[in-house]
Amino acid sequence: MNRVVSVARNSAPGLGFAIPFRVQFSRCSKTFQFLPNTNASRRLTVANSYLRDFTTSTPHSSDHQSYLDPEQPKMTTTATTLKGQPLDRPSLDSMLRRRMFYTPSFEIYGGVAGLYDYGPPGCSLQANIIDVWRKHFVLEEDMLEVDCSVLTPHEVLKTSGHVDKFADWMCKDPKNGEIIRADHFVEEILESRLKGDKEARGQKVEEKEEDPKKKKRKAKGVQEAIKLDDAVVKEYEEVLARIDNYNGEELGELIKKYDLKNPTSGVQPSPPVAFNLMFQTAIGPSSNLPGYLRPETAQGQFLNFSKLLEFNQGQMPFASASIGRSYRNEISPRAGLLRVREFLMAEIEHFVDPQGGKKHPRFEEIKDVELVLLNRETQLAGQTKVEKVTIGQAVANKTVDNETLGYFLARIHLFLKKIGVDQSKIRFRQHMANEMAHYAADCWDAELLTSYGWVECVGCADRSAYDLSVHAKKTGAPLIVRQQLAEPLVVTEWEIDLNKKKFGPHFKKDGKTVEAAVLATTQDQREALAKDLNEKDSITLEVAGVGDGKVEIPKDLIVIERRTRSEHVREYTPNVIEPSFGIGRILYALMEHNFWTRASEGGDEARGVLSFPPTVAPTKVLIVPLSSNEKFKPLCYKLSQKLRKIGISNRIDDSSATIGKRYSRNDELGTPLGITVDFQTIQDSTITLRDRDSTKQVRADEDKIIAAIQSVVDGYKQWKDVEAELPAFEGQEVEVAVR
Amino acid sequence: MNRVVSVARNSAPGLGFAIPFRVQFSRCSKTFQFLPNTNASRRLTVANSYLRDFTTSTPHSSDHQSYLDPEQPKMTTTATTLKGQPLDRPSLDSMLRRRMFYTPSFEIYGGVAGLYDYGPPGCSLQANIIDVWRKHFVLEEDMLEVDCSVLTPHEVLKTSGHVDKFADWMCKDPKNGEIIRADHFVEEILESRLKGDKEARGQKVEEKEEDPKKKKRKAKGVQEAIKLDDAVVKEYEEVLARIDNYNGEELGELIKKYDLKNPTSGVQPSPPVAFNLMFQTAIGPSSNLPGYLRPETAQGQFLNFSKLLEFNQGQMPFASASIGRSYRNEISPRAGLLRVREFLMAEIEHFVDPQGGKKHPRFEEIKDVELVLLNRETQLAGQTKVEKVTIGQAVANKTVDNETLGYFLARIHLFLKKIGVDQSKIRFRQHMANEMAHYAADCWDAELLTSYGWVECVGCADRSAYDLSVHAKKTGAPLIVRQQLAEPLVVTEWEIDLNKKKFGPHFKKDGKTVEAAVLATTQDQREALAKDLNEKDSITLEVAGVGDGKVEIPKDLIVIERRTRSEHVREYTPNVIEPSFGIGRILYALMEHNFWTRASEGGDEARGVLSFPPTVAPTKVLIVPLSSNEKFKPLCYKLSQKLRKIGISNRIDDSSATIGKRYSRNDELGTPLGITVDFQTIQDSTITLRDRDSTKQVRADEDKIIAAIQSVVDGYKQWKDVEAELPAFEGQEVEVAVR
Repeated sequence: MNRVVSVARNSAPGLGFAIPFRVQFSRCSKTFQFLPNTNASRRLTVANSYLRDFTTSTPHSSDHQSYLDPEQPKMTTTATTLKGQPLDRPSLDSMLRRRMFYTPSFEIYGGVAGLYDYGPPGCSLQANIIDVWRKHFVLEEDMLEVDCSVLTPHEVLKTSGHVDKFADWMCKDPKNGEIIRADHFVEEILESRLKGDKEARGQKVEEKEEDPKKKKRKAKGVQEAIKLDDAVVKEYEEVLARIDNYNGEELGELIKKYDLKNPTSGVQPSPPVAFNLMFQTAIGPSSNLPGYLRPETAQGQFLNFSKLLEFNQGQMPFASASIGRSYRNEISPRAGLLRVREFLMAEIEHFVDPQGGKKHPRFEEIKDVELVLLNRETQLAGQTKVEKVTIGQAVANKTVDNETLGYFLARIHLFLKKIGVDQSKIRFRQHMANEMAHYAADCWDAELLTSYGWVECVGCADRSAYDLSVHAKKTGAPLIVRQQLAEPLVVTEWEIDLNKKKFGPHFKKDGKTVEAAVLATTQDQREALAKDLNEKDSITLEVAGVGDGKVEIPKDLIVIERRTRSEHVREYTPNVIEPSFGIGRILYALMEHNFWTRASEGGDEARGVLSFPPTVAPTKVLIVPLSSNEKFKPLCYKLSQKLRKIGISNRIDDSSATIGKRYSRNDELGTPLGITVDFQTIQDSTITLRDRDSTKQVRADEDKIIAAIQSVVDGYKQWKDVEAELPAFEGQEVEVAVR
Repeated sequence: MNRVVSVARNSAPGLGFAIPFRVQFSRCSKTFQFLPNTNASRRLTVANSYLRDFTTSTPHSSDHQSYLDPEQPKMTTTATTLKGQPLDRPSLDSMLRRRMFYTPSFEIYGGVAGLYDYGPPGCSLQANIIDVWRKHFVLEEDMLEVDCSVLTPHEVLKTSGHVDKFADWMCKDPKNGEIIRADHFVEEILESRLKGDKEARGQKVEEKEEDPKKKKRKAKGVQEAIKLDDAVVKEYEEVLARIDNYNGEELGELIKKYDLKNPTSGVQPSPPVAFNLMFQTAIGPSSNLPGYLRPETAQGQFLNFSKLLEFNQGQMPFASASIGRSYRNEISPRAGLLRVREFLMAEIEHFVDPQGGKKHPRFEEIKDVELVLLNRETQLAGQTKVEKVTIGQAVANKTVDNETLGYFLARIHLFLKKIGVDQSKIRFRQHMANEMAHYAADCWDAELLTSYGWVECVGCADRSAYDLSVHAKKTGAPLIVRQQLAEPLVVTEWEIDLNKKKFGPHFKKDGKTVEAAVLATTQDQREALAKDLNEKDSITLEVAGVGDGKVEIPKDLIVIERRTRSEHVREYTPNVIEPSFGIGRILYALMEHNFWTRASEGGDEARGVLSFPPTVAPTKVLIVPLSSNEKFKPLCYKLSQKLRKIGISNRIDDSSATIGKRYSRNDELGTPLGITVDFQTIQDSTITLRDRDSTKQVRADEDKIIAAIQSVVDGYKQWKDVEAELPAFEGQEVEVAVR
């Protein structure tokens, strides 16, 4: 019942009932609807214990480590601001909502959990991130971007496995009707008892970040400081360490065994049932075409594979890409923007020949990029020590499986760097063997450190040929590559010819079943059958469902021969390397990473700053007139128009607040540059330019300032270059400066 | 029962039961669920006869005119290519699908009607259109872009009216189970009978564009050439002229009266029932929160009004904007990309003070833009004569209601022009009074001429205060503007004071009801009550639900006085001007407008060209090596990288096809420029640049060519400028040229 056993079971060869499934969807789900087969279920859940948290759930890598070795101290999850200050999430959140980066959807109707709207700065930030993403990946890599339907018919997601497996375990409180996610419930109650035990033992209790719902539940229940037996503590800790591995039945048993009661009602919840996380709907007027909102963009790309290959003129490798919304009907969303029911994903499916070591033609260009890696072996040893290595080394020493995967890890890193993710808060964590689907060669997550801990923001998996294979099998569509061979391939194999004229009449209604069984024989079986056929007048074959399960085939119906043939075309199902980006999570981490506070002049008040790089900053330039003097209006307007002409977003703030306050507001919005128009402007057309981060200012004529702005926004120059080139200005601003 | 009567009824003041509803949703729907009240239903449908076709339905302005005056000849709907050739839609469609501009979603699973995926060129074209849109509107106009949830709870759409009214009438064939849209069915069968009559009379029958489903239905039924009585012909024509005005009951009566049978089964369909067009789903694990996929992006913007106003620092007017998918569960989608179940919209909600004539501060900038207008009066006269006038004139002579509406019409026109819509195929059609909601001041549609007729692609309506009012009323949220008045407003009114201490105890449980009734009295009522109070010891008020419906209020409980007060703040609900873009329709029209064919050198084959402007072209540059010589590869790659660095999308085509064929393929993809790398390039670093439209070429060194490309892509120069500056080249290309 411990993890190592599970791992061994999972990796045991010849598992027989092994059901292939996607890393892709499993990362969003921990428990699957394999109710009749607890073994299969457990194996699947073990394989996905971490993955489930990808797109929308609360990340908790620290838990992940703790169950490997409960003695191992939990990793610190203390997040800091850009300047190393302790991050006060409530004050950041309040600022983000005040400045309308985001807001709960339908708030005037009371809101709906897990649904958020982006206001103007959030929306612009998102658009800018997407713009960089598209240039960095799609344009740079010649990817084939597609835009597919969100509405997806039942059959497609049945084949992909989502209908059967994309589920969480859910309980109902029989008294108050509350709906509870089973694993979260067991986790919360046991953690709460352990906390009570610590208190009773007089130990210091570390306060974990908690979501409001949890607090509510606890607040209603009474958290008593009760000392537990040492053995019970150990048992609870072991359960918590394995919490991601239980199926519904087991979670139900735990609830009974430990008499876990819902603090809000005082009763045990009902046994867990599987709840599929897809939003269901009916397509068309008759309800006979059930459909779902897609849980990922990937399926649309897989279904279009053949057309994309043709569009790419048959050339391999190539990648498709898609940016779009996906949906997950969370049982109880929490953790703000990190666990939502509707979210934007950007996914790449890179199709590659499984033969030839998955080399990448552009690997050379990125081989010296240094990444912080947390590899599989380190984690298996119960440690969290990371190493900083070049991706070239990592692929050379096989830490990273192949060049293509390595190439994308480096490119993901460069993308995150480009949009302004804090370099010291990125790590790439490798999945352990038991986290991955059995067919996957390797999988790494780009994790970003936030106040919620390390958050999985990008997954990068080598997903083998799974999806293309299942869809091809279901539909008969040839989702394959036909490669013209320069030298024909000589194949020697046992081949079977059936005498169709006699075969059908002989077996009558069972003809097709028997034929299929014959053709499904392996080379080894065929060799044995050929020998039999040489010696006897008939052969015997096991055919399930026909007669007593054994069928006799007379000699004159069948020929089995070893033959040699030349193949000029090689057919293969490509493997897929899939970098998959949760844009909302990246956006949230980016806001935390770029947030800091500075004291106002008086020192009495900390003022928030979001130091986004100009590339992604929602607005690039703030234009402020010194006062509400009417003479400034046309000047501001003209400047604004000039900037817009060259594609630079800007806002005029001619409100009556002081210049300091107006700049302060825009520091909170992350606007990197500010222009002041004052009386001198009227005389000599000079304007001042202010840097958000240093609050320093320069003054020059309009054209020079605009040129400076453009070079900073386009990324050719930094503020320090501007400062070196243009005369400094010490002027109007008196309120925010903390030089 | 004729249209004019309906108009009169609609515009009759004091209609009493008039239920305000949005132009927005009604444009997507023709019949509503007002089953108990056929009058209301008819009025609504009359008001929306045209509007229904906005986002996804088959446009048929020609029908629209025909029912105004059946004698009026139908407008020609013959579409042409960019070069004036007759447009052959099947060959364009086949090219668009071959080049993967679009493809039916889930095609390997048999597809789902009304769902399409965009392949790489379609996806890129869409992204470029959106990019121009965002710059043209959001950036240029300082709009507040938001990104709201698609999942929308029931209550929001109940309030907006969609739950009750966003429906079509649907019949079922009792024999074969076929589901039929009632109005389309009646239309098809009657048209078919009229056609049979014409044939019987030996008249020429004009073949209309038909969708495959219709053909299928007709193919199965037998279209007999039967002569009808003149009176019957007239009756049928009148019914067809009014087809958009019938409710479900009336459509059912028509089916019975004329014994309309489904040709595929030979039986009459069942009576029509209302079918709501929203996709329904359940949010969260308990099914007690029903929700829908939004039918428009507008509601999210309205719900955020107060926050947006605050974000805008309380300043009016301002606009919000949103780009996102919306959904409509069509009964039977047809007309390809024009009527789909999932579509991209871009919507602007411009909030403006209803007082002061809705002036626009930037009207001056666009007042000289010339628009082609089809105004209300012309249409009422049964004509389709358009006039070309400046928007300045149109607003001055009140053809267009106000400056803000006029401003947006001009801006819409400039946007369509910028992305490459054929100027000769745009018209702005004004809604007639009976097409608009009663509260709307004015409404114009930008229609684009395609092979499907004039297609409504952008709606621009003055929608008054409807949505903000209904949401405010439902939720109690103050969706209003509080305007500080420079000069206080002096108001003299009858005011009521209640003696709360005595009032409550006197009326006990009815206290609140009586109080509400008292405070709801009008000024006129108060004046009368004050008079009563002066003369009597008590007043009598009608209060429904209390006692016998009349309540006596003693004198000591109430004071009614006429008082004068100063108001320093004016509160008002803003009006909304809403330009709403159906991006998929614009994209489709753009493809038709930019399509043409040229003969190949041999003249035997017409080759397709899509002459998109460089700004929106999916790929800007094609790079072709002269042959598969290995020496060309690094040169092409280097060029490609250089172009990417400056953000110019390009593709290398080093396939084995001839240069002519490779260029031809890219002409079909709409790639405006082509570079050839040949042996001379190796010697002197010069390359050739080819213009897609003229197939002319210039040759110069790499830097000059790249500079020329950038200036063309950025829109600073046109090909003729490049041709004037750089030396012409007459070289490799021999296949496609038709100079």
